[in-house]
Amino acid sequence: MPGQDNWNAFACDVTEELLLGTAQKIVDYGLRDLGYYYVVLDDCWSAGRTENGSLLANSTKFPNGMKHVGDQLHDMGLSFGMYSSAGLHTCAHYTASLGREKQDAATFASWGVDYLKYDNCFNAGQAGTQLLSYNRYNAMSQALKETGRPILYSLCNWGEDYPWNWASTIANSWRMSGDIYDSFDRPDARCPCTSYDCGLPGFHCSVMNILNKDAAIVSKAQPGGWNDLDNLEVGNGGMTDSEYVLHMSMWAILKSPLIMGTSIPDMSPQTLSIYSNPAVIAISQDPLGVSAHRVWQHPAPTVDSDDQGSYSLWVGDLAGGDYVVALLNAGNDPLTMNASLTDIFFDASSTSAGGPVPEITRGWDVYDLWANRMDNATASSILGGNATVMDRMNATMRYNSTRMSYADGLARNESALLGSRVGAIAPMGTLNATVERHGIALYRLRPVPSGGARKRDEL
Amino acid sequence: MPGQDNWNAFACDVTEELLLGTAQKIVDYGLRDLGYYYVVLDDCWSAGRTENGSLLANSTKFPNGMKHVGDQLHDMGLSFGMYSSAGLHTCAHYTASLGREKQDAATFASWGVDYLKYDNCFNAGQAGTQLLSYNRYNAMSQALKETGRPILYSLCNWGEDYPWNWASTIANSWRMSGDIYDSFDRPDARCPCTSYDCGLPGFHCSVMNILNKDAAIVSKAQPGGWNDLDNLEVGNGGMTDSEYVLHMSMWAILKSPLIMGTSIPDMSPQTLSIYSNPAVIAISQDPLGVSAHRVWQHPAPTVDSDDQGSYSLWVGDLAGGDYVVALLNAGNDPLTMNASLTDIFFDASSTSAGGPVPEITRGWDVYDLWANRMDNATASSILGGNATVMDRMNATMRYNSTRMSYADGLARNESALLGSRVGAIAPMGTLNATVERHGIALYRLRPVPSGGARKRDEL
Amino acid sequence: MPGQDNWNAFACDVTEELLLGTAQKIVDYGLRDLGYYYVVLDDCWSAGRTENGSLLANSTKFPNGMKHVGDQLHDMGLSFGMYSSAGLHTCAHYTASLGREKQDAATFASWGVDYLKYDNCFNAGQAGTQLLSYNRYNAMSQALKETGRPILYSLCNWGEDYPWNWASTIANSWRMSGDIYDSFDRPDARCPCTSYDCGLPGFHCSVMNILNKDAAIVSKAQPGGWNDLDNLEVGNGGMTDSEYVLHMSMWAILKSPLIMGTSIPDMSPQTLSIYSNPAVIAISQDPLGVSAHRVWQHPAPTVDSDDQGSYSLWVGDLAGGDYVVALLNAGNDPLTMNASLTDIFFDASSTSAGGPVPEITRGWDVYDLWANRMDNATASSILGGNATVMDRMNATMRYNSTRMSYADGLARNESALLGSRVGAIAPMGTLNATVERHGIALYRLRPVPSGGARKRDEL
Amino acid sequence: MPGQDNWNAFACDVTEELLLGTAQKIVDYGLRDLGYYYVVLDDCWSAGRTENGSLLANSTKFPNGMKHVGDQLHDMGLSFGMYSSAGLHTCAHYTASLGREKQDAATFASWGVDYLKYDNCFNAGQAGTQLLSYNRYNAMSQALKETGRPILYSLCNWGEDYPWNWASTIANSWRMSGDIYDSFDRPDARCPCTSYDCGLPGFHCSVMNILNKDAAIVSKAQPGGWNDLDNLEVGNGGMTDSEYVLHMSMWAILKSPLIMGTSIPDMSPQTLSIYSNPAVIAISQDPLGVSAHRVWQHPAPTVDSDDQGSYSLWVGDLAGGDYVVALLNAGNDPLTMNASLTDIFFDASSTSAGGPVPEITRGWDVYDLWANRMDNATASSILGGNATVMDRMNATMRYNSTRMSYADGLARNESALLGSRVGAIAPMGTLNATVERHGIALYRLRPVPSGGARKRDEL
Repeated sequence: MPGQDNWNAFACDVTEELLLGTAQKIVDYGLRDLGYYYVVLDDCWSAGRTENGSLLANSTKFPNGMKHVGDQLHDMGLSFGMYSSAGLHTCAHYTASLGREKQDAATFASWGVDYLKYDNCFNAGQAGTQLLSYNRYNAMSQALKETGRPILYSLCNWGEDYPWNWASTIANSWRMSGDIYDSFDRPDARCPCTSYDCGLPGFHCSVMNILNKDAAIVSKAQPGGWNDLDNLEVGNGGMTDSEYVLHMSMWAILKSPLIMGTSIPDMSPQTLSIYSNPAVIAISQDPLGVSAHRVWQHPAPTVDSDDQGSYSLWVGDLAGGDYVVALLNAGNDPLTMNASLTDIFFDASSTSAGGPVPEITRGWDVYDLWANRMDNATASSILGGNATVMDRMNATMRYNSTRMSYADGLARNESALLGSRVGAIAPMGTLNATVERHGIALYRLRPVPSGGARKRDEL
Repeated sequence: MPGQDNWNAFACDVTEELLLGTAQKIVDYGLRDLGYYYVVLDDCWSAGRTENGSLLANSTKFPNGMKHVGDQLHDMGLSFGMYSSAGLHTCAHYTASLGREKQDAATFASWGVDYLKYDNCFNAGQAGTQLLSYNRYNAMSQALKETGRPILYSLCNWGEDYPWNWASTIANSWRMSGDIYDSFDRPDARCPCTSYDCGLPGFHCSVMNILNKDAAIVSKAQPGGWNDLDNLEVGNGGMTDSEYVLHMSMWAILKSPLIMGTSIPDMSPQTLSIYSNPAVIAISQDPLGVSAHRVWQHPAPTVDSDDQGSYSLWVGDLAGGDYVVALLNAGNDPLTMNASLTDIFFDASSTSAGGPVPEITRGWDVYDLWANRMDNATASSILGGNATVMDRMNATMRYNSTRMSYADGLARNESALLGSRVGAIAPMGTLNATVERHGIALYRLRPVPSGGARKRDEL
Repeated sequence: MPGQDNWNAFACDVTEELLLGTAQKIVDYGLRDLGYYYVVLDDCWSAGRTENGSLLANSTKFPNGMKHVGDQLHDMGLSFGMYSSAGLHTCAHYTASLGREKQDAATFASWGVDYLKYDNCFNAGQAGTQLLSYNRYNAMSQALKETGRPILYSLCNWGEDYPWNWASTIANSWRMSGDIYDSFDRPDARCPCTSYDCGLPGFHCSVMNILNKDAAIVSKAQPGGWNDLDNLEVGNGGMTDSEYVLHMSMWAILKSPLIMGTSIPDMSPQTLSIYSNPAVIAISQDPLGVSAHRVWQHPAPTVDSDDQGSYSLWVGDLAGGDYVVALLNAGNDPLTMNASLTDIFFDASSTSAGGPVPEITRGWDVYDLWANRMDNATASSILGGNATVMDRMNATMRYNSTRMSYADGLARNESALLGSRVGAIAPMGTLNATVERHGIALYRLRPVPSGGARKRDEL
Repeated sequence: MPGQDNWNAFACDVTEELLLGTAQKIVDYGLRDLGYYYVVLDDCWSAGRTENGSLLANSTKFPNGMKHVGDQLHDMGLSFGMYSSAGLHTCAHYTASLGREKQDAATFASWGVDYLKYDNCFNAGQAGTQLLSYNRYNAMSQALKETGRPILYSLCNWGEDYPWNWASTIANSWRMSGDIYDSFDRPDARCPCTSYDCGLPGFHCSVMNILNKDAAIVSKAQPGGWNDLDNLEVGNGGMTDSEYVLHMSMWAILKSPLIMGTSIPDMSPQTLSIYSNPAVIAISQDPLGVSAHRVWQHPAPTVDSDDQGSYSLWVGDLAGGDYVVALLNAGNDPLTMNASLTDIFFDASSTSAGGPVPEITRGWDVYDLWANRMDNATASSILGGNATVMDRMNATMRYNSTRMSYADGLARNESALLGSRVGAIAPMGTLNATVERHGIALYRLRPVPSGGARKRDEL
């Protein structure tokens, strides 16, 4: 469920103009057709309730009302994401829905809402056990179902009370950590936990902090219920380009919702090209719906100025027998990394009696998923309003999932979804790559066709 | 809500005489007019209940009853703080209010009480989950509201069950740690936790212990609901003057209630001058109501005899575009500390796309908030009963918030609230200061007027 | 309660054919007569419920229904193990029993079920406190009792909510960790805990990970209620032969259920010989029913490629005054290990006033419990279908507990149950052995007959 | 409430003969008159319930019934301690009292029971929150009160659910850790916690393990409600004489119940002399009822074979202005320890404004509380049945609290209660002592009489 959310870039400064302007750019820049359908209005839209208790939009910010917003978005081929909270107030102290779930769900449905982000502030002590949180969030889940309108339910309780244990039966995703901030790995006192088991989720959690927490719960992701690693910070200025590429890549392979958290109208060519890589989005949208897992992580030879540094190998199953492999270098210097097939297929190996598994004795073609990243000139042209450029883009840079779903495209081996073949791993071989500082190498592995005569060109 | 509480200095030895004598000195020494309006009577005042179940004051200690005490305090222009406990007994084994909330709140209102400190001892197992604590403390919250009298509600459950999550909707402040004691950083077995996540809050928690716990929850402070770091120990003899200055400064910038915890009649000139710094109190009373946060903390080059040592940078937003910056040296030797504008404005920087934020490219005037600390001669004169000296004090030492609120004074740039300008930070520059052992440098940063021709005099 | 479970080897690929084919091999290979009576059908057998709400087997996988399966197993002299979950779905998303306990227990009884493995997925927030888990699992416990059919109840909640505290009064065993995987000691991010106190049991827990968790709770095992360390991975290919011998040995002395988790039809001679050691199974089935405990554990001189390494001494009481002693070397190199009688009998020593305890001043015969491990030729012959070979096996390799229970066999000193005497420990002496890398030395200690004239042949 | 309990020495082997035989020796050896009044029968006495549901004593073990036992004990001037459990069974699987509190309390009262040890096994999931444990234990508390008979209530839930928070209003003592075993400091896997915050109290907890846990909760001890550190192991053979002296001393100054846990009839002269030191028991029975606290603890220069080693200073307030000071050396070698008056009176110093506190500027006489330990010849004589020796013992070895309470004896400065004066600490001075390996120096400090002309003889 990719989309866009205004919070990371604009926080409380929301208006119809901002929302619909953003939506128009999402369409214009081809992002909708890449799959970013959900335009999520975050906190601060409310002006309380009407006399009969219905939620009321702020009429200054939204002069035409919320139904109008929904209609406009739908007319653009987009979906409408809304925000409320399972508390006495929203986090920004606006009207929230605890105890008013049925009425509010009905209101959302009447506005044409397709997605609800449901937050956790000021919950009157109704947290601290799984059952209290389950009951509190289930009330809205049932209310949404009763509206009859399909509304994706995005549970935002920051990983409190182990939502991965109980949320999959009532929601489509659940946040699993405190709020992200635009930093690669800097520790911040306000995000005090370094593991999934956290009494104070907080905020100002870095990309690496969140990845380390998610590593323990990857198996909880499943079709229809996802670990939500929070909105993407790509484009907000606090990280390098390679850090943003890493950030986008990891969110995709871990099957986190891909919610763009930057200002769409203000985005740079580099930002657009990171968000617009169909080969990476295809991993996120892979029909198998399995999150990658971390095979190993080691301390890096060098640490950065925040005393952080590690490197790790992540692997995920894909539909059709492919795999995604990420070599993640969170060290302070470029690093040559090696991943043997034994490591890559450790899961399969460790449960097979009698010799190496077929995955290890087979050869694999290696596709670099960032090889065809859109160039800056093309991206600038798109941002500059030259809409026709999209049609002229070569097939490796561009995908239109409105016309053909990712599942269908993958089944047809659309080249835009495969990156670029850069070599192969021989049977029993090893994948090698030099990965830049705070960077990632991201590959799709596909079995070498059995009848093929391809010579060995191991990376 | 600054004030005074007798517990740290006198514990159970309370009488009308002590309380009113203290109150008179608070007036005489100018502390009331600096903002210390609340005179809080702590535990041990009770003689049980009357036949009809009303709370009864000890008639030996309070021969004229509690209404008289309230009246006297009000006549002095002060507010009356009272104490009870959400348990079967108070911590000192006196009558408490669990299950008697309505009757006791009504009694407090009838006595003219303006503030209730509500403790946590002997709570009959009604703790250990957020909901149990919320319900127990909410009972008194509702009871206080029902009296119709505005009574500040100071929740004292020592950070148990994460009050920062749920107390802001029912109380004005919540203790967030075990009881403070008069030590800068000495670990004590009876305060066993070093983080916010604590199964045994205990007591004998040092200033640094409490600061390290608060660093994780600074964002929970907000107008109307504050993290309470416990009463101030300034003047009780267990710390050096610079440690007390640090203690006072940090409580102010973290927006903890400033409750003087020493014997007012016995205070030294140094103690009076620490409590009486309007430029620091103005940070505490800043209308924006945002707690400072810790940007970074590093191990200090040297540790003290308790094996402790660190140094840290804290920054907080102030109304009108100013910032407060604290360079805290908890190491065992003087230390030259540097804080670049990039560090100081890290929060702003990390969420800005496209180059350095304006805060970093602008110059800042630096005001030392302790520069105009009252001299000992003046303080001695005040303590000696020379009441008129206060009127003769120059404007930088003295502020009367009874006449003009801090908000108004800040809006008018009253010089007593600004400390003394000691230099400026150039655009993209760095703030430097040599900070004494266990000491602090505390600055207000104010944008260099844009039209100004001020030359560079970076610290 | 030894047996076999298909999950580790086949996961969801279950059919009547697999189950009954496996059962036949269990009989043919002599495993039934060694005590592996329970054939457990794990997840994925269900096709939902009938119109009246009864559980329904998948008719493709089980064309003759579940009663037929039960009958066939009983006809082979085996017991029928079934699977369900105390949740909204099973872990593989099949129909589960939460809220339907009575009806489902009755169905199981009607199918002739003798054993129920009851899982923990998707439990709707009804976890996180001991009472919630107790109530949820007790519902099925009561339902099983009400059927009137004796059904072993195997509680599978992965150690959540401290089942060792409360499960013994309602169940026959309880899992005490996340799911095992076929690795000796490799840490995996998906099994994040290293102690019994675990918020996320996970899966991919290694043998050593589970042993370290169990060390704290060994005393919770008792006749009728056992710590379940999860199914055995012996034969699944991820460990060396000596690691599998260690794995089998430790599960036996810790009184974990011995559930073979490999494909029986595909097992190798080595695998058969590990599962088929009556001297080790006799420890598991010892009538005293006391788990061994870890006397000490030290870091090993060398660590392996997963940075793991330790060595430890484990001792357990046996019926009739014998003891089992395990010298466990989890280091990366062979190690000469010493265990003095003072160490071995530390428990007895530490509670005896007045000089060394009799256990220390007595001599002990030492029986190596792996000395008579079945040779590969014999094992191959059995696997090859030469059924008569079992009858020709000498008494030290073979035991038939169908004819004579382990308790009776031990009482009669059947030699197959005693391993081979390899020496003795002199009074006040020490047991020494060189233990291979990732290996174990496993001994039964039996008092030297008091009238004996045996000369000293200390190991 | 000193006494004796049979568990540590005899576990389940209880009979009337053992109990009354033990009781007679308690009288004969002068232990009753030293204050060990409670003779506690631990688990395994029951034979279930009668037809009407009353608890029934095992008639083989107790052929004359329990009322007879109570009568006999009372006739000897002793009190009768009984055992049950707040669970479905006792820990040894005998009948327990959960849900039968009123009936069982009435039975105990009818038997003349004066003390109830109430255990925690098999509690059906009714644990894990403070409220569940409070309610479960409060049921028996109320039932005992309703009998009208004064029965001391000794809560034995091993520190689960923070009993120090809630037990003082319903019980007279509460165990605060897992079960002790007869070891000074050896870690054991079955006692996995090293702090008060413990999910698995376990057993085989060493003396030092328990002391380290208690250090955090010393303030919870108060008249009428004590931290119970478990029965004394003195005399059971697992520790050295100096370790037992340390054990006895620390239990006394921490105000733990002093329950002898050894076989009284089999005790050695050394054991008798440790239990029989009136100067140490007087600390335990001090009328002020304040537990000592740990002022500091440092790593020892050398560790023992269990890798343990520390040394620490403990200080406690006594009635009448005296203090008890313990220099505890848990290191592996003798150590010269220093404790300045500033350290000893740190609590007082840290809360005093204006110069050193009087405690520091005053001189103190130092009384060694073990100086007059009974010699072995005398102890042997007593154990040998020479009853008259007690009357011939000099006054420094002997005290009869049946004739005169400790409170009265202390008020009259009975020399047996004061140990022996061994010197003094000068004003601003330091207490020095060389303390043996795993040993303690235990002193009573008493202000030097102000008019005295005593010359300086600082230790």
